[in-house]
Amino acid sequence: MNHAGKSHPHIALNSGEPGIRGLFRFRPEAALPLNQLSEVLLCGDSTLPRGERELIATYVSALNRCRFCYYTHAAFAATRLPDGAALVDQVRADLGAAPVSAKLRALLVIAAAVQESGQRVTELHVAAARAEGATDLEIHDTVLIAAAFCMYNRYVDGLATVAADEPAHYAERAKMTGGYVAVWADALGRAA
Amino acid sequence: MNHAGKSHPHIALNSGEPGIRGLFRFRPEAALPLNQLSEVLLCGDSTLPRGERELIATYVSALNRCRFCYYTHAAFAATRLPDGAALVDQVRADLGAAPVSAKLRALLVIAAAVQESGQRVTELHVAAARAEGATDLEIHDTVLIAAAFCMYNRYVDGLATVAADEPAHYAERAKMTGGYVAVWADALGRAA
Repeated sequence: MNHAGKSHPHIALNSGEPGIRGLFRFRPEAALPLNQLSEVLLCGDSTLPRGERELIATYVSALNRCRFCYYTHAAFAATRLPDGAALVDQVRADLGAAPVSAKLRALLVIAAAVQESGQRVTELHVAAARAEGATDLEIHDTVLIAAAFCMYNRYVDGLATVAADEPAHYAERAKMTGGYVAVWADALGRAA
Repeated sequence: MNHAGKSHPHIALNSGEPGIRGLFRFRPEAALPLNQLSEVLLCGDSTLPRGERELIATYVSALNRCRFCYYTHAAFAATRLPDGAALVDQVRADLGAAPVSAKLRALLVIAAAVQESGQRVTELHVAAARAEGATDLEIHDTVLIAAAFCMYNRYVDGLATVAADEPAHYAERAKMTGGYVAVWADALGRAA
């Protein structure tokens, strides 16, 4: 996807860590709320399963062509959904044909609209999700997850951070179960 | 700009507050990190003046056609920059001709690239800002402010929140000096 072949970020980071992790170490004051936001949206209490929330994040990252975020969250989704790895590929290739519930499909359609622009989300998108059983809180969280990944994707790529190409790198990290604030603490060598 | 004439949000909020403030009250767990992020980026220690950071936020919100965020941050920028109200209009109308420093212009060009996509930020954009004296931290913060407003703008408009049309409404709120976490506390009736 992005910056293929580019070997160094736009700014001099203070570590060799890839993607957003190098940015967390460079700017820890911003890293804390960024991770707390991910923690609330992707790991916090919700009627949407964690794997489905990771799939929304993954799908938006694919639409934004952000390699680091896509591989990272695809790996998280793959560990948390039945046949997760295949499902991520199917959603990315053809959402209309992917074997997800009608409700999740309608939420992913909303996420894709948000990826283009907030104004692209229509009454019809929202009514379709509601007709499949989505609650207002689930619709809210879908919009905010999609919007947040439009931020994370731009942050990671706007500074041309480096992303690993080996799927095993991401699969290994996806086994971590401590959540995103733990990732932040790990990156900074601090207690969560 | 967005949703002109539309009188109600896509979901049932638990207050009549406009824009992102109604969303803060609906989802306080997410509101806290969202406001802490704004606080760090727009009010925290930085070699970029607060008014210039608000101008970056305003410019991105204009490019995203987000009425609530644009009017809100235009009013903040106007109170913090010499001839602020006129300057906001000039930047929005024609960045190339607006009377800003060469450094701020180069940072606004980076912000505009981020608004399109992270991949649109080039080595040349970054070299141009650096040649005008921008530090790596200033370039970093510009990218993250622009990325964050691509999130806030999508959040506000993706849920079709209602925005006031009267400039006086925003000018009055811009007199508040407590920062963004104070806004969050005010919206929720909590101590900051």
